[in-house]
Amino acid sequence: MSMKEELEYFYMALHPRVVVLVVAIDREGNPNVMPASWTTPISEEPPHVALAMWRENYTWKLIKESKEFTLNTPTAELIDLVWKAGTISGKDVDKSRILKLTFSKSRKLKTPIIEECIAHLECKVVDEVDVGESTLFIAEVVEAYGSKEYLVRGKWNVRKVNVLEHLGGRVFTIATKVLYPER
Amino acid sequence: MSMKEELEYFYMALHPRVVVLVVAIDREGNPNVMPASWTTPISEEPPHVALAMWRENYTWKLIKESKEFTLNTPTAELIDLVWKAGTISGKDVDKSRILKLTFSKSRKLKTPIIEECIAHLECKVVDEVDVGESTLFIAEVVEAYGSKEYLVRGKWNVRKVNVLEHLGGRVFTIATKVLYPER
Repeated sequence: MSMKEELEYFYMALHPRVVVLVVAIDREGNPNVMPASWTTPISEEPPHVALAMWRENYTWKLIKESKEFTLNTPTAELIDLVWKAGTISGKDVDKSRILKLTFSKSRKLKTPIIEECIAHLECKVVDEVDVGESTLFIAEVVEAYGSKEYLVRGKWNVRKVNVLEHLGGRVFTIATKVLYPER
Repeated sequence: MSMKEELEYFYMALHPRVVVLVVAIDREGNPNVMPASWTTPISEEPPHVALAMWRENYTWKLIKESKEFTLNTPTAELIDLVWKAGTISGKDVDKSRILKLTFSKSRKLKTPIIEECIAHLECKVVDEVDVGESTLFIAEVVEAYGSKEYLVRGKWNVRKVNVLEHLGGRVFTIATKVLYPER
């Protein structure tokens, strides 16, 4: 294995990563959707997230203009739809028609949420940093809500719900086993 | 559930998240270690990561000064050690003595890596953005390497290795089941 390959492979050590469906709108308010996993919480008070996005993505252009997006958490049952959303571009087709998803009004944004998902984060961009081929969008989470029946003490109940995670390429995974450190 | 609680809880929808042990050094070159999971890849070419860190953390101060850190991936077998590393502060004690960890020389940084971990990312800070209570350190990954026997086609082989993920609080999880979308 060359040093270059080694770097490429082990850069993926930060996977598996929770998948989100990012929704952003064009100037007419039409929603587009793409899957992403290169996202992180930053600060709890007030809540902020970072979302890394390749500058060639159609969604990148939409967020650049609208300055907002929603993050929607799919379960593993939506894997085929997630894959499809990631392999076609909103530049070419209206994904909101092709994908069997229900876009419904969010609480505080013009951008809708995806009803079939179990969590929805409404995000307003507050800063943008260009890094390599991507832009890191830093956004305040102005609302967050979802399916309370899948939570247990403020965390996902992974015994009840399969949170979809991306390992890389066509490979996904789910976390089901719960572990605790010794007291 | 109040809107405020709802926001707090569902902000955690971006979990579970892969745990890393962050190593940073003080001016004398002494290493400190803390666990983190609020990190994300940003751009593959060249590889960059973002690491969100609370400004009260001792490690924050170290990275602010040294402008470098290593990210080291522990397996689930190290859960007790990870927990301990996260519940004591390097301000008060020399964690490198208390924790049974082997710090060894990295390839390109002054900061060491942790030998017991399965992946090591050597990171040089290129930008810093203050967000809420945290700083988002944006860093170039100048080297990445680890235990090749746990990789399969450039991804973790989750059938062979238990990558530790944090759900929140004292709750951790591991992803073991592999899923593929339909072709």
